[in-house]
Amino acid sequence: MLVEDRLKEANLVLPTAQPSVANYLPGIEEGGLLFISGQLPMRSGKVAYQGKVGHDVDIDAAKKAAELCALNILGQAKAILGDLDRINRCIRLGGFVNCGEEFRDHASVLNGASDLLVIALGNAGRHARVAVGCSSLPLGAAVEVEAVFSIKSRPVEAS
Amino acid sequence: MLVEDRLKEANLVLPTAQPSVANYLPGIEEGGLLFISGQLPMRSGKVAYQGKVGHDVDIDAAKKAAELCALNILGQAKAILGDLDRINRCIRLGGFVNCGEEFRDHASVLNGASDLLVIALGNAGRHARVAVGCSSLPLGAAVEVEAVFSIKSRPVEAS
Amino acid sequence: MLVEDRLKEANLVLPTAQPSVANYLPGIEEGGLLFISGQLPMRSGKVAYQGKVGHDVDIDAAKKAAELCALNILGQAKAILGDLDRINRCIRLGGFVNCGEEFRDHASVLNGASDLLVIALGNAGRHARVAVGCSSLPLGAAVEVEAVFSIKSRPVEAS
Repeated sequence: MLVEDRLKEANLVLPTAQPSVANYLPGIEEGGLLFISGQLPMRSGKVAYQGKVGHDVDIDAAKKAAELCALNILGQAKAILGDLDRINRCIRLGGFVNCGEEFRDHASVLNGASDLLVIALGNAGRHARVAVGCSSLPLGAAVEVEAVFSIKSRPVEAS
Repeated sequence: MLVEDRLKEANLVLPTAQPSVANYLPGIEEGGLLFISGQLPMRSGKVAYQGKVGHDVDIDAAKKAAELCALNILGQAKAILGDLDRINRCIRLGGFVNCGEEFRDHASVLNGASDLLVIALGNAGRHARVAVGCSSLPLGAAVEVEAVFSIKSRPVEAS
Repeated sequence: MLVEDRLKEANLVLPTAQPSVANYLPGIEEGGLLFISGQLPMRSGKVAYQGKVGHDVDIDAAKKAAELCALNILGQAKAILGDLDRINRCIRLGGFVNCGEEFRDHASVLNGASDLLVIALGNAGRHARVAVGCSSLPLGAAVEVEAVFSIKSRPVEAS
């Protein structure tokens, strides 16, 4: 099944790629890899989940925030690649949770992003991951996620 | 010398690869690179070093925690590659220390992981590195380390 | 224009590569990629910007700290590559800001590094990026930045 069909079937809407909030690119395709910049849980141009996970944002909301970060990753990937079916697989997610010293459940939060990628890409969405706690994140976001994908070579054009 | 012989000579035991604690893979081999997910200082299924480095965990124990993370990285690499001698070299470690605002000695802590990789791989274990302080880490771990290796191509089979 | 000429024109001095502060390499060139270790805002062997951004270090100074990290990245790249014109492009920056819970403007701080790379490399300096807040950084540094570049293949020597 095609990636965008999988998202539709799960009632998930691929967001329009947002411009970067500063002097960097949303992503870079190079040498068969696609690096996507850290995505915040932005919806309609605003950070939809702000504050400390475990205080201002509960685990369920934080999972939703991580899912939204992953949707924004796919939105950026589509803008760069033209077609999400050019993704070969997801290689690595870097997951950052805005939380206090007592927080221990980063893995559950980041599963919101990991589950979304498996929904979208099937087995090709399964990835390596690192998840850590941050003293703060840009714009007060509750979660931030970056990604590396491998990309299928473009077919050689018939001459 | 073979990687596992080096570890034995240093009285270090390669741990059995632990399953991931959530919906992600312990590592991904792709395009000649091996990405290993962030490893905690797990021993026999439990986090052996918990709490804040500099408070609950002193520097010497934190170095041991980082060494244990690196051993778990090699355990995961073996489970994925089948043979640690397929590693060409270690390229990058990402090191995360669970610590307070006053902590300054992340480099000494992460040397526990870096030294282990040099013991195991010799010059091929020398790597680029980033080390930062985190407000918290999964399961209260004192240290977390992720890694990227390059992998030798498999020999072409004789026909 | 050559990279070092661009720096001179902007009155920026390429620093001499500093040795790593611990058991790791300043960078690794492998498979067409160059991974540079996390660089601190070191000048003449000392951390020039220390403390919490937003408290001890204001945004303008923190941008300068990030710029200095990026200059040190280029200094390390030159020591490894021999010639900065071997850089094909900057792929990814990892940016870490030493800051408290209330801090929200990591993007402005990291622009100090991103702007410097665009000054030095032009369009080839534009990159993917992740920026997060850390509870502490090595040696009390205000900012730390790591980088990945792609490298031009060496020309085949005439026979």
